[in-house]
Amino acid sequence: MRIAKVVGMAIATVKDRRLEGGKCLLVSAADSAGREQGIPIVALDMVGAGEGELVMIAEGSSARVAAGDVNRPVDAVIVAILDSLQHNGKTTYTKS
Amino acid sequence: MRIAKVVGMAIATVKDRRLEGGKCLLVSAADSAGREQGIPIVALDMVGAGEGELVMIAEGSSARVAAGDVNRPVDAVIVAILDSLQHNGKTTYTKS
Amino acid sequence: MRIAKVVGMAIATVKDRRLEGGKCLLVSAADSAGREQGIPIVALDMVGAGEGELVMIAEGSSARVAAGDVNRPVDAVIVAILDSLQHNGKTTYTKS
Amino acid sequence: MRIAKVVGMAIATVKDRRLEGGKCLLVSAADSAGREQGIPIVALDMVGAGEGELVMIAEGSSARVAAGDVNRPVDAVIVAILDSLQHNGKTTYTKS
Amino acid sequence: MRIAKVVGMAIATVKDRRLEGGKCLLVSAADSAGREQGIPIVALDMVGAGEGELVMIAEGSSARVAAGDVNRPVDAVIVAILDSLQHNGKTTYTKS
Repeated sequence: MRIAKVVGMAIATVKDRRLEGGKCLLVSAADSAGREQGIPIVALDMVGAGEGELVMIAEGSSARVAAGDVNRPVDAVIVAILDSLQHNGKTTYTKS
Repeated sequence: MRIAKVVGMAIATVKDRRLEGGKCLLVSAADSAGREQGIPIVALDMVGAGEGELVMIAEGSSARVAAGDVNRPVDAVIVAILDSLQHNGKTTYTKS
Repeated sequence: MRIAKVVGMAIATVKDRRLEGGKCLLVSAADSAGREQGIPIVALDMVGAGEGELVMIAEGSSARVAAGDVNRPVDAVIVAILDSLQHNGKTTYTKS
Repeated sequence: MRIAKVVGMAIATVKDRRLEGGKCLLVSAADSAGREQGIPIVALDMVGAGEGELVMIAEGSSARVAAGDVNRPVDAVIVAILDSLQHNGKTTYTKS
Repeated sequence: MRIAKVVGMAIATVKDRRLEGGKCLLVSAADSAGREQGIPIVALDMVGAGEGELVMIAEGSSARVAAGDVNRPVDAVIVAILDSLQHNGKTTYTKS
């Protein structure tokens, strides 16, 4: 599961009806210190993540499993809010 | 779901019959300000997207779910038309 | 679906038996003007594509759907032969 | 299956309940000599891997198969601990 | 299917039991002339490939189909041994 940082949100009125009932957050892939890498994608939030937090995202068919209904047309879903990350013996991230 | 910009269309007479009944749009991955990133791909449009709009695309097996029939041989489908994007506290895109 | 150019073919005598009954073409990802991008892959041809043509390929599990039998071990299949591409208001490719 | 090095761990209290009962390790893709490549991801450990070890990870829907229950929302799972790697006739890695 | 060169092997004693009964070869993505591209991955061999040979690999869920049992936790499987490749009218590779 990629590590990602919640950096904002996406608003869409016209959309597949099966995307309703879930917040579409803007997330950027991040390194173990929480630094954004590359351009953001949109992920469906299933755990109540907030802006600035580091999260874990499940992608591909696993995103549909994470979405609680494999018939939802999603390919990226937030499955965990990270409390901390340890990398090479150091704590590189702690949720504030 | 990657953010993409609708930049054109693809015309194909000879094709898998299951691709019929849907418009094949040319879309480029985009950043949160709508700037095109890299070379475009073809996505099946399920929401009536128009050229110049920013959209969300579902990819992989989720594209087949989005296409309304998992037996359609597609790996990228437009599932939402974006109204706006918020990134790091700023509105980086608003549909015109 | 990625746009690809048919650039050649792959010959293999020793192979999974389920790959038989289909031509294995060499295709390179291409931009909207048909210029090759990166190194080629092998795709199963389901539409009678010819060398030099631009095509659309379905990848991942959608390739197996495209192959007419989800038990064929393929991850890239040609699903359409492109007649033309429109990109940012211009015709960037027309089949000759 | 990509080769990866176990470089740490991820702690998350708020998460999809189906992620419980497995350790979430931080792993970095690695070359055949065990050198880290790019930013790490989180993989569910199914084989008791330890920090510093080289492992094989299964990704995508195969990660869910590896997790012992295809309803677990994971897209990366450790499926083997490498003892050694041979690359171009040389032993490039041996587990210490 | 990506073209890959068999460059070695991976040995693992501790592994998912469903990986047994198949050789884990080290393969590098390759161009049409057989030159290695990037770092190698591990692929399950189903066709008796040998070191130095160019092969075709099926990835993702198609790898599990190729493995003869969709419950094997693999995401890369060798499905063919290439005899030759034709690229832009030239024979770029012939098995020796």
